Amino acid sequence: MDYVLSDRISNVKPSVVGDIFKMAADPRIIAFSAGNPAKEAFPVEAVRRWTAEIMEEDPVGALQYSLNDGDPRLRQRIKEFLFERYHIGSDDDDIIITTGAEQGLDMLAKLLCNEGDAVLCEEPSFVGALNTFRSYGAQLVGVPMEADGIHLSKLEEALQQHPNIKFMYLIPNFQNPTGITMSEEKRRKVLELSVKYSVPIVEDNPYGDLRFAGEPVPAMKSMDTTGNVIYAGSFSKVLAPGLRVAYLCVPKQLMSALNTAKQCSDVHTAILNQLLCYKFLTDFDFDAHIENCCRIYKQKYELMAGEIARCFSTKVTVTEPQGGMFLWCTLPDGADMMAFCKVAVQRGVAVVPGNAFLMDEAKSCQSFRMNYSSLPDEKIIEGIEILGQLTKEWFD
Amino acid sequence: MDYVLSDRISNVKPSVVGDIFKMAADPRIIAFSAGNPAKEAFPVEAVRRWTAEIMEEDPVGALQYSLNDGDPRLRQRIKEFLFERYHIGSDDDDIIITTGAEQGLDMLAKLLCNEGDAVLCEEPSFVGALNTFRSYGAQLVGVPMEADGIHLSKLEEALQQHPNIKFMYLIPNFQNPTGITMSEEKRRKVLELSVKYSVPIVEDNPYGDLRFAGEPVPAMKSMDTTGNVIYAGSFSKVLAPGLRVAYLCVPKQLMSALNTAKQCSDVHTAILNQLLCYKFLTDFDFDAHIENCCRIYKQKYELMAGEIARCFSTKVTVTEPQGGMFLWCTLPDGADMMAFCKVAVQRGVAVVPGNAFLMDEAKSCQSFRMNYSSLPDEKIIEGIEILGQLTKEWFD
Repeated sequence: MDYVLSDRISNVKPSVVGDIFKMAADPRIIAFSAGNPAKEAFPVEAVRRWTAEIMEEDPVGALQYSLNDGDPRLRQRIKEFLFERYHIGSDDDDIIITTGAEQGLDMLAKLLCNEGDAVLCEEPSFVGALNTFRSYGAQLVGVPMEADGIHLSKLEEALQQHPNIKFMYLIPNFQNPTGITMSEEKRRKVLELSVKYSVPIVEDNPYGDLRFAGEPVPAMKSMDTTGNVIYAGSFSKVLAPGLRVAYLCVPKQLMSALNTAKQCSDVHTAILNQLLCYKFLTDFDFDAHIENCCRIYKQKYELMAGEIARCFSTKVTVTEPQGGMFLWCTLPDGADMMAFCKVAVQRGVAVVPGNAFLMDEAKSCQSFRMNYSSLPDEKIIEGIEILGQLTKEWFD
Repeated sequence: MDYVLSDRISNVKPSVVGDIFKMAADPRIIAFSAGNPAKEAFPVEAVRRWTAEIMEEDPVGALQYSLNDGDPRLRQRIKEFLFERYHIGSDDDDIIITTGAEQGLDMLAKLLCNEGDAVLCEEPSFVGALNTFRSYGAQLVGVPMEADGIHLSKLEEALQQHPNIKFMYLIPNFQNPTGITMSEEKRRKVLELSVKYSVPIVEDNPYGDLRFAGEPVPAMKSMDTTGNVIYAGSFSKVLAPGLRVAYLCVPKQLMSALNTAKQCSDVHTAILNQLLCYKFLTDFDFDAHIENCCRIYKQKYELMAGEIARCFSTKVTVTEPQGGMFLWCTLPDGADMMAFCKVAVQRGVAVVPGNAFLMDEAKSCQSFRMNYSSLPDEKIIEGIEILGQLTKEWFD
């Protein structure tokens, strides 16, 4: 039997990132290509204790079917947590638990886009999200980034030119892949444009808590008085990605359709995993834990940035993230970035070619993404030395 | 901001089953409407031990990101398990882990159907699957059931009349909602039709292990030599639904697209949950456990069937499942089934109105679904007495 694939899935090329997870499994490769949290940031002892507690306290509850929108205790706790900590959410909003933030994006694309409709994205942007939107037959409209976030006049231009844009997908904090943070001023102006053009914002904030430099910037959702912002938060980067628990804070009018989409997708997010996140938010020193994570990432980032300054050709430019997990290297004009990445992996260092993050992967790109959160220090030093040597051979 | 929903999600009415989970949470209602395993069938002690072991042996592995298609050890073990036990799978097949079987159906609809394409289903069929197909804009073509499974000549007629059918969705064992098992002869003939019309079969088999009467019938996948059958298995009914772990056994040619769909959906199924299923298949007396589950369900089924025989009007007919969790009651011609179900719930007993399982919910239906697996014996007796009294008031 020969299977014929749907148009929507044929639009998605198997992502470079998927292949890279497999490559990164080869222990000989120094993988700056992953997006993994540092393993030393996992609160292993606490998770061990919580799993034992859950399996003592209510094992049947942890194993049985449950509600589509998530465990009511976790939803309530997230609501309080978001409001107390970030002034996010109002009486007009509600929380739905998702199986990773990716599933939240999946459901929003399914809910808000007909095939052929468009999603506006920062360019470059997170390839996982782009592929999810593509997988619903959505067109991607890219708006370039500046050092303080999305390019405002080009954003407005895009909104005018594409009346079929159904939402803007934005990662305001420590953006994946660039590491750029959108300024408060830009956030307010983007929100104004959202209201002016009646195009909602999906604010994806997986890294927001992982700030190790500079001052916090309020979430767009915290500025939202009109229900234009849908906020996606996740436990993947602050607790553990393997648990696959995240959430959306959304205007209540969307909850019925989201419940339906959730029921059609995986019925509900695994209960044991939800209860672990509940314990994480109620039975743990969250501030001390986040402080520890930020200390780890600050040290790793500064190590990588320092080694880059020491080893790289000065013709290569690099962003300076204030948090999160990624930085973005740009090769000099005219350099063949893809060839550079191929030689790099032959020498044992994997990075993600920047065109993976473009609306059109076939477009040329001078940049690549590097992750500093997951590797041990000696691997960071060794990998940057190899890459640095290569930049000097190619560009000096 | 007023949100406008996509056509595809507007096609899905919020399912009766979702509302019923909420109703069933009211402890005053006797809910024959759920599809929950009996809580006494959960191997709580073993799960407790396995979680502790996993959190000792490799906590970081359980918490970190992993591969899209699932933990390689679990995939390998499922492959062996399916082949050794049921002769399912060949060298041309592979395994992908899904977040519940529902997600497998979601990905298959996404992969195989363009909007407007059709999926052929037994009528009635599992409402969760029907809604998932609807949520991709698929048309549903229903083929009626007989006592030994789908109506063969009507099946062939439907395949001839609808050239845009992209797959047949079938639940051959203890079908949800009817409890009917497809005979071996019909399975072979359906497979022949699948080959003749080049329309693949999605064989959903969540209940197959839960046979408490009659003789096992081979899976269609075990008869498949042409790659026409995609097999969906699940840990939900034999281990625990709250874990949300299931799998597809599919022709290898679909694996790349399934990996892409998985990456776009929830990246991968939670690792701790996958590892629990691995322990279940490697570190446990599976046969003894299944025997225990079947003993529980046999006793509950026989209790319910006996009480129905004792209490119901003889004008109500009932299927006689040989396994699984459901039976299907049909009221006499002319009875208002929906009104009957409404009065039943007012008297404290919830069942699922049969039209929820039709291709067109607006069509009239004389039947309703009852679950015997989840309630304690005294509730089964009490609930059937109430329903029986009602059938006698209405029909005798």
